[in-house]
Formats: sequence, C-alpha cells, structure tokens
Amino acid sequence: MYEGVVQDLIDELGRLPGVGPKSAQRIAFHLLQADPVDVRRLADVLVEVKQRVKFCKICFNVSEEETCRICRDPRRDPTVLCVVEEYKDVVAIERTREFRGRYHVLGGAISPIDGIGPDQLRIRELMTRLNDTQLTEIILATDPNLEGEATATYLTRQLAPLGLAITRLASGLPVGGDLEYADEVTLGRAFAGRRAAQ
Amino acid sequence: MYEGVVQDLIDELGRLPGVGPKSAQRIAFHLLQADPVDVRRLADVLVEVKQRVKFCKICFNVSEEETCRICRDPRRDPTVLCVVEEYKDVVAIERTREFRGRYHVLGGAISPIDGIGPDQLRIRELMTRLNDTQLTEIILATDPNLEGEATATYLTRQLAPLGLAITRLASGLPVGGDLEYADEVTLGRAFAGRRAAQ
Repeated sequence: MYEGVVQDLIDELGRLPGVGPKSAQRIAFHLLQADPVDVRRLADVLVEVKQRVKFCKICFNVSEEETCRICRDPRRDPTVLCVVEEYKDVVAIERTREFRGRYHVLGGAISPIDGIGPDQLRIRELMTRLNDTQLTEIILATDPNLEGEATATYLTRQLAPLGLAITRLASGLPVGGDLEYADEVTLGRAFAGRRAAQ
Repeated sequence: MYEGVVQDLIDELGRLPGVGPKSAQRIAFHLLQADPVDVRRLADVLVEVKQRVKFCKICFNVSEEETCRICRDPRRDPTVLCVVEEYKDVVAIERTREFRGRYHVLGGAISPIDGIGPDQLRIRELMTRLNDTQLTEIILATDPNLEGEATATYLTRQLAPLGLAITRLASGLPVGGDLEYADEVTLGRAFAGRRAAQ
C-alpha cells in the first residue's frame, strides 16, 4: 500500500502484540514526522535490550549481569523460594514488598494446547536448585488460571517427596485473570494468606 | 519499576501514539523474548525510514527520491491538483483509483488552538506551483472536520483571483471524522461528486 521502507515499517510494527494495522500505520506516520534523534533512541534501545538483557543463570529472571539483582542480594531470605511463570510476575511481587525470599522463573505454564509440557519449562533447573538444604518453603505463585493451576498441581506432586512446605498464594486473586494485573494490595494480601498445597 | 534498559525500552515505547503504559510493558516483554534477528530488523527499519524517507520537493508527499512517484509519473493528469492535509490522505485517495491528477500535501490544517496558521502549512509552496499554466482545477480534499473546513475556506479565498475551478469533495464523507478512515467506495463517490467551492 505504501512505498518501500514505509510499508516495511508498518509491517514490522504490525507484528508487535496489540498493534493492529491501523495502529501500526498511525505509529509509522508519527515516526515519519518525529525528530530523527527520538526515533534513533528507540532503535538504539531495541538493539541494546537484546544485547544487554540476559537471563539470570540461577533463577532465569531478567538481568543485565550473569546473575540477577535478587539472587546477588545477601539480604534475601535463602529459606523461601517463590516459583513464578514469567519475569513480569517477579516485578509484580516485588512491588508488594511482602516477599523477601528468592525466585524461580519457569518461563511459562503447562499448556498442552500450545504444546508446552513440563519439559518446555525450567522445571529441571528448579529441581537442581532444591538440593540447597537451606530451603524450607516453596511458594507456587503461578497465575490463577487453568494453565497456572495445572502447573502448580504438577509441581506439587513433583515436590511432595522432598518434605518441604509447599504453599500456594491465598485466594483473593481474581480467578481467570493474570497475576501481573492484580493491584499491589490484593497481591500483597494473597501473599500474606498463602495456604498449604493439596 | 524495571531494571535499567528494560525500563528505558518501556519508556520509549510508551511515547508512541496509542501505546499506554500497559501496552508498552506488554510489547517490551514480547521483545525481550523475541528472536534477536526480528528485533534487529525493527530497529534497522526505524533507522532506515528516517534516513531514506524524504519529502517530495514538488508536492511534499513522502518519497525515497527527490520527487515522489506521482510527480515523476508522466501519465498523471497535469491539469488537476488535489490539495490534502497529510501523506496518509494521498494514500487513501490513491486507493480509490478515482483520481489521476497530482497532489499537494499541506502538512496539516489551520488550527489556531494548536498554533497552526497558514504560514505553518505549505501554502506558499502551493501558490508557487499555481504558476503552472496547464492547471485548470484545484480540488480541496481537506478533512471534513472543523480544521479541514477552515483550511478549505481560507484556500478558496486565496485561490479565487486565479480563475481556476476550485472544488470540494462531495458530501458523503462522515462529518467530524478523518478522511483517511473512509472506506474506498465512500471516498471514491465523494471524489466523483465533488462540488464548486463557495
């Protein structure tokens, strides 16, 4: 529809999540008229984010170092491990200031429809971490939806033989939603009222 | 909220039109997990679009050359000139295949609230082009909203002494909307039924 590189830009923008053809066009026209310095800054940060952002080799949280800020922090409680699906869940939980332990980021949830089974998640890496004898509790903080519940149920069975306390976040989170959209107070209360996994 | 460059990326994405904080976050997380090659391609096209896209020195349409594809095309009717607000309006009109003349892109519409008067638009350049004696008709295809109407009225007065036919697009366009969102048929009919400007 448009000439050369303008159409390329619209196509690339249209691949982003939540950006439809009209939005892509609107953003492209905005960029055509924007200050080249601003557009350059966006381009640079895109390149930089892929160059600099790694995943923590302990917990798979997003990090600019080999290990993330939380894993490096000696003040974090080494006896509690919180298992989450994604990096954004770590951020949401950190915002509540309710949790002072460490994390393990699975990289998703079990979802047979999407071809994601236990082997596609960082469950093997989680099992390796559990050799740490300081650990006393594992909090399964997966999303309160079908996939998150399935993942938590699977992990509960896998972890049961280890004799650790295995807990789930308290109800209070809206069922069927995404953990990351819960407000700080709700998510904080859910943390405080966590229950033993069955 | 997020670490270093991830927050920079969210901030930059949040500056784009129609991208709120939650969308910016969602796009950023998508990019964090995306193939680096895809992200690189987006970054490259952003840089390229600012390097390669110029504005046609005749009509101010977007172009990768000194003059745009339409101005260079000898088959376009040199007797009719269509005045539009923006590049996207050129694209919308081209899609109708109703118009075979050339364009003049004003770069906006008169809007005193936004500090845009005739001097901020490419009206002086339009007047210079009218020395072309082949011209017989000027179509004022500004948006059917307040600013577009004001611009057309202003231009009608300015152009009247030249003795050319000055026309407006036919009613049929939804009033209060943007020209670019009209469907091809409506816009095509509006072109076919254009009326003399008062």
